[in-house]
Amino acid sequence: MGIKPLGDKVVIKALASEEKTKSGIVLPDTAQEKPLQGEVVAVGSGKVLENGQKVPLEVAVGDRVIYSKYGGTEIKLDGEEYLIMNEREILAIIQ
Amino acid sequence: MGIKPLGDKVVIKALASEEKTKSGIVLPDTAQEKPLQGEVVAVGSGKVLENGQKVPLEVAVGDRVIYSKYGGTEIKLDGEEYLIMNEREILAIIQ
Amino acid sequence: MGIKPLGDKVVIKALASEEKTKSGIVLPDTAQEKPLQGEVVAVGSGKVLENGQKVPLEVAVGDRVIYSKYGGTEIKLDGEEYLIMNEREILAIIQ
Amino acid sequence: MGIKPLGDKVVIKALASEEKTKSGIVLPDTAQEKPLQGEVVAVGSGKVLENGQKVPLEVAVGDRVIYSKYGGTEIKLDGEEYLIMNEREILAIIQ
Amino acid sequence: MGIKPLGDKVVIKALASEEKTKSGIVLPDTAQEKPLQGEVVAVGSGKVLENGQKVPLEVAVGDRVIYSKYGGTEIKLDGEEYLIMNEREILAIIQ
Amino acid sequence: MGIKPLGDKVVIKALASEEKTKSGIVLPDTAQEKPLQGEVVAVGSGKVLENGQKVPLEVAVGDRVIYSKYGGTEIKLDGEEYLIMNEREILAIIQ
Amino acid sequence: MGIKPLGDKVVIKALASEEKTKSGIVLPDTAQEKPLQGEVVAVGSGKVLENGQKVPLEVAVGDRVIYSKYGGTEIKLDGEEYLIMNEREILAIIQ
Repeated sequence: MGIKPLGDKVVIKALASEEKTKSGIVLPDTAQEKPLQGEVVAVGSGKVLENGQKVPLEVAVGDRVIYSKYGGTEIKLDGEEYLIMNEREILAIIQ
Repeated sequence: MGIKPLGDKVVIKALASEEKTKSGIVLPDTAQEKPLQGEVVAVGSGKVLENGQKVPLEVAVGDRVIYSKYGGTEIKLDGEEYLIMNEREILAIIQ
Repeated sequence: MGIKPLGDKVVIKALASEEKTKSGIVLPDTAQEKPLQGEVVAVGSGKVLENGQKVPLEVAVGDRVIYSKYGGTEIKLDGEEYLIMNEREILAIIQ
Repeated sequence: MGIKPLGDKVVIKALASEEKTKSGIVLPDTAQEKPLQGEVVAVGSGKVLENGQKVPLEVAVGDRVIYSKYGGTEIKLDGEEYLIMNEREILAIIQ
Repeated sequence: MGIKPLGDKVVIKALASEEKTKSGIVLPDTAQEKPLQGEVVAVGSGKVLENGQKVPLEVAVGDRVIYSKYGGTEIKLDGEEYLIMNEREILAIIQ
Repeated sequence: MGIKPLGDKVVIKALASEEKTKSGIVLPDTAQEKPLQGEVVAVGSGKVLENGQKVPLEVAVGDRVIYSKYGGTEIKLDGEEYLIMNEREILAIIQ
Repeated sequence: MGIKPLGDKVVIKALASEEKTKSGIVLPDTAQEKPLQGEVVAVGSGKVLENGQKVPLEVAVGDRVIYSKYGGTEIKLDGEEYLIMNEREILAIIQ
């Protein structure tokens, strides 16, 4: 994929809200602003700590993740929309 | 369980407010916004310190915990509601 | 006691405001929002520093302490009310 | 004295504003909110740094100090009023 | 180029919004305030960590980048407009 | 002098605004809130870093300094007014 | 020059806005609050990190720099106006 996030940033392809994961996780439907699901399509090389050590991200390309709706910035890539956000805005990996 | 929280995040199954623990702990009934109880169902791998060391969480799957009502984000998993929150939003383990 | 606070948190049993300590310390009576007294009934295992070292708490179970009224969260345990707060919200130990 | 402040906290006995120190230092009389003088009556065991080292306080019991009026919390001890504040709210020692 | 950004600052030549990258990335056209594209024309020597180590930037001169519209300060150089921003305001490199 | 500032605090004797330094530095006269000049009359023993090291102050007793008007707290000493401020509120030493 | 900035502070002689650098850099003329140019006339000895190491400034006396208009405090020296600001408020060196 032609995009490389910086630092601890991650590019996510959002899943349509009606989409359902294999494990049966669905988003609650009673509120407007909730965590959403997506698939990780690109990850940064990691976060640099104050001791100079670089910590790789916990998420990897292909991971299905839940993220806060307020997280991230929208971009368009080859005609499709993606989100770029810091890894700390991702809540969990769906396994 | 099919979900892996990131970092120091924890997934909690909230207990109904009328539920009572074996040790007899009940939530106060005079106010609306109080600590709540739940059971830990998934934990992240820990928090990374500025020296690169990863500190495992104090709570473990199966722990009964008290947490601040303002903490956490709601998700649905296999039709049931759960909360994801940082471990620092958990007040105590009920033993 | 069936509760284990996390990190540097402490469980305190508040003393009735008319109560007087042996050493004769009383709370000032001219204002509404003042430090209060209580007895420590449970303590967390300590605070983790950025170098990974765990620092045990200064207060211990049984200590009589003065704490800021604004500190802490109320919980009920076996029908009695307690407070959970961070140790830094405790001002002093009464000896 | 029957009180032990935690960490870098200090207990101070305020001096009456008309009181004058031996070295002739007086508080300015033209404004309401100014630094005040007092005597240190109890000190905490020190502040714990992020490397785990405990730094003892600069002030000691018996020191005459100038402190910011906005600093500290009032308590009563054996019928007398005292202040508990962090050492960083103390401006200087009068020698 | 006659300009040297300090620390972790970067100078960017913004691309006109109608411009399209070779990889086909275009900016979304439905909102006013979105990430923009540009080319890196100068980079600082890096960020100094609290341990004294200098961390070089991830971006290099010639990189095509996506950056937050709110980031950066406009300057003029030889009659053309540029932006100076911190590297953390850059979201990703387009490859 | 009978006063010892704590930590990185400094006691300054303000110069009258009409006063002029030997090197000819004068304060601008077109605005009300500007940096002011004074002479350092007492300094603290230094700032303690997170690694436990104490860093001595850059200013010394007798230095003529420029400081921000918003910095510092007024005190009276032997009938004269002084300012106590943190060293970081001092802008420069006039040589 | 008779002034020594403290820490990571820098003294700058602002250039008149109509002035043009040799390399042809000019300030944009369409807005009121933009980066400005000046010449460094004095620099502090550096910033002390939390490990006690002193980091010298990137700018040196004689450097032509671009700085944020909102940065700095005005002073007068021998009848001329200067600015004192932290090095982090300087955006770039013009070479």
